[in-house]
Amino acid sequence: MKTLPVHLPGREYDILIERGILARAGEHCRAVLPKARRLAVVSDSNVAPLYADRTLESLGAAGFDARLLTVPAGERAKSLAMLGTLYDFFMEMGLTRSDAVVALGGGVVGDLTGFAAATILRGVDFVQIPTTLLAQVDSSVGGKVAIDLPAGKNLAGAFWQPRLVLMDPAVLGTLDESTFSDGMAEVIKYGCIRDADLYAYLAQRPSRGEVTADIEHVLYRCCAIKRDIVERDERDTGERMLLNFGHTLGHAYERAGGYTRWTHGQAVAAGMVKAAELGTKLGVTPEGTAARIAVLLGCFGLPLAIDCTQEEYASAIGLDKKGSGGDISLILLEEIGRACAKKLPKADVLRLLEGEA
Amino acid sequence: MKTLPVHLPGREYDILIERGILARAGEHCRAVLPKARRLAVVSDSNVAPLYADRTLESLGAAGFDARLLTVPAGERAKSLAMLGTLYDFFMEMGLTRSDAVVALGGGVVGDLTGFAAATILRGVDFVQIPTTLLAQVDSSVGGKVAIDLPAGKNLAGAFWQPRLVLMDPAVLGTLDESTFSDGMAEVIKYGCIRDADLYAYLAQRPSRGEVTADIEHVLYRCCAIKRDIVERDERDTGERMLLNFGHTLGHAYERAGGYTRWTHGQAVAAGMVKAAELGTKLGVTPEGTAARIAVLLGCFGLPLAIDCTQEEYASAIGLDKKGSGGDISLILLEEIGRACAKKLPKADVLRLLEGEA
Repeated sequence: MKTLPVHLPGREYDILIERGILARAGEHCRAVLPKARRLAVVSDSNVAPLYADRTLESLGAAGFDARLLTVPAGERAKSLAMLGTLYDFFMEMGLTRSDAVVALGGGVVGDLTGFAAATILRGVDFVQIPTTLLAQVDSSVGGKVAIDLPAGKNLAGAFWQPRLVLMDPAVLGTLDESTFSDGMAEVIKYGCIRDADLYAYLAQRPSRGEVTADIEHVLYRCCAIKRDIVERDERDTGERMLLNFGHTLGHAYERAGGYTRWTHGQAVAAGMVKAAELGTKLGVTPEGTAARIAVLLGCFGLPLAIDCTQEEYASAIGLDKKGSGGDISLILLEEIGRACAKKLPKADVLRLLEGEA
Repeated sequence: MKTLPVHLPGREYDILIERGILARAGEHCRAVLPKARRLAVVSDSNVAPLYADRTLESLGAAGFDARLLTVPAGERAKSLAMLGTLYDFFMEMGLTRSDAVVALGGGVVGDLTGFAAATILRGVDFVQIPTTLLAQVDSSVGGKVAIDLPAGKNLAGAFWQPRLVLMDPAVLGTLDESTFSDGMAEVIKYGCIRDADLYAYLAQRPSRGEVTADIEHVLYRCCAIKRDIVERDERDTGERMLLNFGHTLGHAYERAGGYTRWTHGQAVAAGMVKAAELGTKLGVTPEGTAARIAVLLGCFGLPLAIDCTQEEYASAIGLDKKGSGGDISLILLEEIGRACAKKLPKADVLRLLEGEA
């Protein structure tokens, strides 16, 4: 078992990575929640049929009164209405402040359940069991939880750190190709922004089969990078924005596809290539970097460019809640393995993007 | 002007108390929010017609783009649906993470607006302008914000400290007798739990006219007491529960009246008398204390006892989210001016209450 300790002000917890850990969820939860009686487990209609039984059985064997709520799979579950459904479920089962909430699923389940945990009874303990590659390397580290609003994604939420994260690499075996690749976009992002060794490791293993042979190593590395950044900037006011490499333009692509045509990872992949090109134009990123990244992303079936109108770029840049005033902080690569934030007038960024439209 | 500084981990702010401060809200907000462009002001249908104009005018003069959302007066506004209305309002006006939200109203407006501020864009700055006596001495200090759920009051929420609190004693002049008395129940509570001098001061001024002659002193004292307690226990895991004197039984009375017959203050008043009686039965509270408190509460037109069935007591004790397991922490008086928490089996508490039914 690999153990990654996370130290944040007022909250320390471990990320445990081990094949088959789902079936030992009970003992690990009991170790960190000695007094809890009830566990509210939230999962979705894709994941629950596969993994809820063994998880609930293990939790029950550890003496928890664990009950399952299954929400519909997909982004639409991250709504205010579904948040109300979770609240009502918690209250019906008699959840108290010494009990806890468990998210068993991908990023949508983690975000929704985490926000519910952050706010029910003004906050109860939260255990994450991420079941997609994307959730394992991204949304289960950092404490960002949220729901979507009519005006956009992740607009209401909180920072709420988990009490424990359990990662079972075995569950990745049931992911379809597209969902696996979705996570690979974020994995490659970590190499780009912070870890040339990880990038080289991936470049030497440019297929799902090769990467999953020792996926524990990859999961650990990605989570360690994010952990290091989040420990220094929990509230996302500085360094943490480096994690947004490829994301600002990715938002434009997600929007361009009506949030249904492209997954988050696909949009981020194209966003990283475009950001590398932009960086080269600005004299920050070495020539050829975009092409190198594109080759690796392509090996995992990710799109290297996505059509997008000027209006969609403008809207994504203007609506981005990390943007302030007339400038936008764009994350650029100084080289593969080293990212920086560069504040640019939004108008200039649009002009540069236009030159390529 | 009286200034009460509050120091909490990661957040320091001032409570400013001054007659007419509403008309100077702009300059005070600007001092603590130098970069904010937009202020979303939330008020209710009772308060907005009286005080929104002068507040928005002052905010506008200080260079803020301040916009008003008026919610219906009353507890029913503390709903998940109304939270969604606030979120949509914030997004429509283009609120960003460097902007802020202002609550202009009583406890309901403060709780609802504070929860929205705590969660929109994962948290923006929050300014409170409490306009009832109860909100000034209670809900504007401590950072507890919440909405109600079908299962009960304040069940979903957060701890979210304001950036600034502005108290205008002049606005208390427009409160009706019942709303003023409602606040006096909490004022008297502070005397009971922590400040025999404040209690004596009130006992010598047992009418609205006498108390309001120097209400600044009373506001300052009450907020200072709560500030001291909250500074030592922001997350409500220990000493802060002393503030619940009269509240556990008060919840039973609120429930008994269907949350419409008795106000929070009325229920707490009867709860304090009953808790004092209970304390005497348990040998903690001196004989005659309940009667002394009852006389003072009576001077402000507050009820000294409220009929309540055994089932309502049981339900209030069982559902109380401060209760854990089979015990309940009851706040009792060792004397007027000194409270303690006593953990008792819920069953024993019910039996003692039954003896009086």
